[in-house]
Amino acid sequence: MTVLTENTYKPLTNEDAAALVRKLKLIDGHDLAVSEIGDGNLNLVFRVQSSTESIIVKQALPYAKVVGESWPLTLDRARIESEALILAAKYVPDLVPKVLYSDSTLAVTIMEDLSDHSILRKSLIEGTAFSKLAAHIGQFTARTAFYTSDFYLHPFEKKKLVQHFSNPELCKITEDLVFTDPFFDHDTNEFSSALKPDVEKIWNDELLKKEAATLKYQFLTQAEVLLHGDLHTGSIFVTEKSTKVIDPEFAFYGPIGFDLGQFFANIALNYLSQHHHSSEPFNRKETQETLLTVIQETWTVFQNEFTRLVHEESKEVFARTPGVLQNVLEKTFIDSVGFAGCEIIRRTIGLAHVADLDSIPCEDVQLFLKKKALHLGTSLIKSRKSISSIEQFTSIIRGA
Amino acid sequence: MTVLTENTYKPLTNEDAAALVRKLKLIDGHDLAVSEIGDGNLNLVFRVQSSTESIIVKQALPYAKVVGESWPLTLDRARIESEALILAAKYVPDLVPKVLYSDSTLAVTIMEDLSDHSILRKSLIEGTAFSKLAAHIGQFTARTAFYTSDFYLHPFEKKKLVQHFSNPELCKITEDLVFTDPFFDHDTNEFSSALKPDVEKIWNDELLKKEAATLKYQFLTQAEVLLHGDLHTGSIFVTEKSTKVIDPEFAFYGPIGFDLGQFFANIALNYLSQHHHSSEPFNRKETQETLLTVIQETWTVFQNEFTRLVHEESKEVFARTPGVLQNVLEKTFIDSVGFAGCEIIRRTIGLAHVADLDSIPCEDVQLFLKKKALHLGTSLIKSRKSISSIEQFTSIIRGA
Repeated sequence: MTVLTENTYKPLTNEDAAALVRKLKLIDGHDLAVSEIGDGNLNLVFRVQSSTESIIVKQALPYAKVVGESWPLTLDRARIESEALILAAKYVPDLVPKVLYSDSTLAVTIMEDLSDHSILRKSLIEGTAFSKLAAHIGQFTARTAFYTSDFYLHPFEKKKLVQHFSNPELCKITEDLVFTDPFFDHDTNEFSSALKPDVEKIWNDELLKKEAATLKYQFLTQAEVLLHGDLHTGSIFVTEKSTKVIDPEFAFYGPIGFDLGQFFANIALNYLSQHHHSSEPFNRKETQETLLTVIQETWTVFQNEFTRLVHEESKEVFARTPGVLQNVLEKTFIDSVGFAGCEIIRRTIGLAHVADLDSIPCEDVQLFLKKKALHLGTSLIKSRKSISSIEQFTSIIRGA
Repeated sequence: MTVLTENTYKPLTNEDAAALVRKLKLIDGHDLAVSEIGDGNLNLVFRVQSSTESIIVKQALPYAKVVGESWPLTLDRARIESEALILAAKYVPDLVPKVLYSDSTLAVTIMEDLSDHSILRKSLIEGTAFSKLAAHIGQFTARTAFYTSDFYLHPFEKKKLVQHFSNPELCKITEDLVFTDPFFDHDTNEFSSALKPDVEKIWNDELLKKEAATLKYQFLTQAEVLLHGDLHTGSIFVTEKSTKVIDPEFAFYGPIGFDLGQFFANIALNYLSQHHHSSEPFNRKETQETLLTVIQETWTVFQNEFTRLVHEESKEVFARTPGVLQNVLEKTFIDSVGFAGCEIIRRTIGLAHVADLDSIPCEDVQLFLKKKALHLGTSLIKSRKSISSIEQFTSIIRGA
């Protein structure tokens, strides 16, 4: 238990985690069972349970491990994660796990246990649909965006938040792995040699790279709203009725469309992966159309909720000038399509793949779908400014 | 002299200023003459001189006074000013005053005395031209922009600077006085009743307001480079050979085109003001054409120097992708035209006018030229995206 009284960081043991929960009186009962359930790449995740309750103790590790490699990574991300969750809880209390305690020295966040939920990516791979998902993610993105934007906040408060959520190390991961490395012959990339001709097409497509550079520049410079920063389907916990957005350790001030784009991309990747169920074409089509409906409805809910909030709660005097809100929505839409394109490409040939495609057993099918993914990502990035509606966006995915 | 040993802020007296300079051994000699030469609205400015040397002691006041009104204003702007000067000195050492000492508690910056220089605005009103001015301002804007941008800095270093130069209070002044109040019937506005019909045209021009809102949004959200933040002709000291950019207390991370736009606007306002010398049409025309040449040459030098730096020193791997630099330059140009439009309008009807127009003795001429200014500002904001060259920009000023 010494770790809990010292004022320095140390990775917790199961016993430390239980002792901390006991000390904070977060669970009744003395016989606490602890299991470490994290994947060990970035964080320790302890489930601490009594006979009646359970709770999660999450601790950041001072390094990141991906595909065997390990590099140092700031513990400050634990502060960012817990503060982003606490801020989100003000505006979307039902859509984030409840934070019960946080300690920035130990890089620990204690929060409610969501073990009755599943990871969205896993469920989507199994073909499960969630009827509330789109409405929830639309609400999440609209409300966290609006309430951290210049439309709502006093400029002093907004600039304080921009400083507070400055997140250089985690942003650099995105700057490199999403916006840079996949567009060049970089050693972080990962793809089978059979995909090489298609990858080289990307590396040689100067127009594509110019547009990717623009999106990267936006990510680097446009401090519009506080983003989740990593809103893929592995960061979302679901049940049929409930949606919880977790793990906002990449939170920072960036362009509104980024969270939406990452979400759309991961739904689109799952859409593509469904093709491999070729034996049940009818069910497959239905599952796929449901996924496209998720994208459409997410955008529609986002747009409606953001619009409502600007009309009802904006403090920006220009908010009522015709066309101002429309401009922001149009920019957000175009950006989200472009960011989706980058995410689709990097999840196919970059360092961090998605199980949706990589778990497809037949290699030929996998290759075929990855080619489709690269083609889709490329065309979203290049033609984003001429895609004028969410229906047109989903029909491009359908046509991929 | 107690003020110099205490660890609290107090406005300096002449004696304090002399004692500080003596203590720091910044000037030889014991008999120091001190005169306060500031305008007393924002800062105390002491000239401290011996028989052979002189030096400037500048101290921020904890309030701002404009047109009789007084409001509290952060002393942190003294830190920002001295640190922005020190940073600029790394990249444009000949174009800023040398900082000899700074103290953030006293909000004091001690710097070289530039009393052999004149204030550019005053000289321009007198019709004096400066053959090096454009080259110097082009260099200043290009080099300070490039070396503080994502093209040059490591992202960690850039994000540290963004935090360091967070400047909410001074930015708010610009957000209000440049980008908001002049477009609405706000009590900070200041104009003669004869101008009212033209002002109302602005207030009722929804398209103009939409575009002004976009420019304001860019100012609020686009952290591209460290700007001077207030680069009008009153912030520039000149001789025939030397140019010194002073007073960067508004420094913050914003869109590259902002400094250029403010500079262009103030040159354009002087251009318009020259019309009142109608008795000497030939000289007047020559003076005016020289001013347009300043705008053209400033842009050309900016563009060439920024391009050279990106080619020779950029660390951004996309910098060599065709079109990437071109995109940034095009955006910068369009933004600068729009920001110039906002500055022209606010200097004509907002809280802080320019002597160029306000000192014109004949009221009818003044009114006539202010109408032209409002028309010019409006058309720059609305048509900025279709202005494709600096020559087209200056010909619009010529046609105003």
